[in-house]
Amino acid sequence: MPVMTAEMLETFNREHFPQVDHLGLKVAHVDDETIEIRMTTRERHLRPGGTVSGPTMMELADAGMYLLLLAQIGPVALAVTTSLNINFLRKPEPGEMVAKGRLLKLGKTLAVGEFSLYAGDPDDPVAHVTATYAIPPKR
Amino acid sequence: MPVMTAEMLETFNREHFPQVDHLGLKVAHVDDETIEIRMTTRERHLRPGGTVSGPTMMELADAGMYLLLLAQIGPVALAVTTSLNINFLRKPEPGEMVAKGRLLKLGKTLAVGEFSLYAGDPDDPVAHVTATYAIPPKR
Amino acid sequence: MPVMTAEMLETFNREHFPQVDHLGLKVAHVDDETIEIRMTTRERHLRPGGTVSGPTMMELADAGMYLLLLAQIGPVALAVTTSLNINFLRKPEPGEMVAKGRLLKLGKTLAVGEFSLYAGDPDDPVAHVTATYAIPPKR
Amino acid sequence: MPVMTAEMLETFNREHFPQVDHLGLKVAHVDDETIEIRMTTRERHLRPGGTVSGPTMMELADAGMYLLLLAQIGPVALAVTTSLNINFLRKPEPGEMVAKGRLLKLGKTLAVGEFSLYAGDPDDPVAHVTATYAIPPKR
Repeated sequence: MPVMTAEMLETFNREHFPQVDHLGLKVAHVDDETIEIRMTTRERHLRPGGTVSGPTMMELADAGMYLLLLAQIGPVALAVTTSLNINFLRKPEPGEMVAKGRLLKLGKTLAVGEFSLYAGDPDDPVAHVTATYAIPPKR
Repeated sequence: MPVMTAEMLETFNREHFPQVDHLGLKVAHVDDETIEIRMTTRERHLRPGGTVSGPTMMELADAGMYLLLLAQIGPVALAVTTSLNINFLRKPEPGEMVAKGRLLKLGKTLAVGEFSLYAGDPDDPVAHVTATYAIPPKR
Repeated sequence: MPVMTAEMLETFNREHFPQVDHLGLKVAHVDDETIEIRMTTRERHLRPGGTVSGPTMMELADAGMYLLLLAQIGPVALAVTTSLNINFLRKPEPGEMVAKGRLLKLGKTLAVGEFSLYAGDPDDPVAHVTATYAIPPKR
Repeated sequence: MPVMTAEMLETFNREHFPQVDHLGLKVAHVDDETIEIRMTTRERHLRPGGTVSGPTMMELADAGMYLLLLAQIGPVALAVTTSLNINFLRKPEPGEMVAKGRLLKLGKTLAVGEFSLYAGDPDDPVAHVTATYAIPPKR
């Protein structure tokens, strides 16, 4: 069982990360291994031609990994990303974007997860991300 | 439906890639989106202390992605890896290693897939890989 | 010799990518293999504790790779990122951030580059990025 | 100044990693930030058509990063790779392959480096690698 619920994660995120407010993140689901978060893209998240920008998808996945980790270890504001790898797969249509994540490893000092991002089509992801977070000692 | 069966993939692999013979790859399953391959680690695949070497896992995942791609597009020997990202998650015990892959994208010029590698424990992967292959034109 | 100068790149960027205006990018140098771009971080680019956010660094490097590519092939608005890998190395102090990039490959369909990002200390990078762009056909 | 010389690194490598003997690694240079290693490709390192295999290049860069790290922290056999990202850039011709590495970060628990690999042409790399190693505590 995760130590933080979807509602606790949303509240923590709003209070500590005002800079991420523009994403309007919703935590649709979280358990001890997976998370699903959602956002609705706005003008500032788009590129010419109307597709969602790459940095928006990177920010969404990075936030998702952070919340998936916090759900397991509690509200440790100091966990930081050490690396992130993204593959862009298809043109993402504007509207609702869904990020589904899975914890691959939760160690003492490092946590690793993978995310598939969807926009519209629930079968074919628009991007895939793996991310590693460093967990501060004496948590 | 894939255009090549598990048996066809094994035969093609043996005939065209003698340098990969040392892996002794078995294709346990393949369909139009996923693949499962297996190998049994030998002395040359190990590191001091008896864990499986990183390069062995990279080679296994790279071969798995190649076979997953061939299963879809047929025996095109000239598809080449353009990038590969691996996260090592846990110490892999010697013995049977299983790689489970999923096609994330099959485009005209690029194919992207992800693999989870298992050794012993079927729940916790020892490594996770994303790989991109370039598909030669006029296939 | 690149086909677009630093000034042309800045103008093109401003006209076509209003969503990136918040970075306030300056192109300090560009040639046929390297680029140096700069930005001054603002409140919206920071995290609690005052460090620069990961997504800001990803966006900076992604924009840098795009401009380095455009400098070589001309104003092709349709080049798109296919993958990006970032390693976060040190806490980045707010203020001026510098991204120094190098083209590793300029092929017919793919371009690959690497970037080191600096904040304050000119010797020790705060992040390192490799990025791949797909180049649209018939450019 | 590194704590291990090129000769010490070669001796340590031979004694502790017999499985890497097939690479025939030579340490051409090492200092407190960079390393240059070389190998001569043999039949087992090649693919159909005569190019050097991807796994050979991954193994070369991984070994290079390990030696670059050991040169700084001494013969700690237990440092392990946590992640590796490779971009394949050009067809590598058989013969001598050179890997030039640079330490991006040497922290208490993680070290990050980048490598460019060359085969024949000294200007255009055939592959580029970033790799992260975990450093065991109480070194």
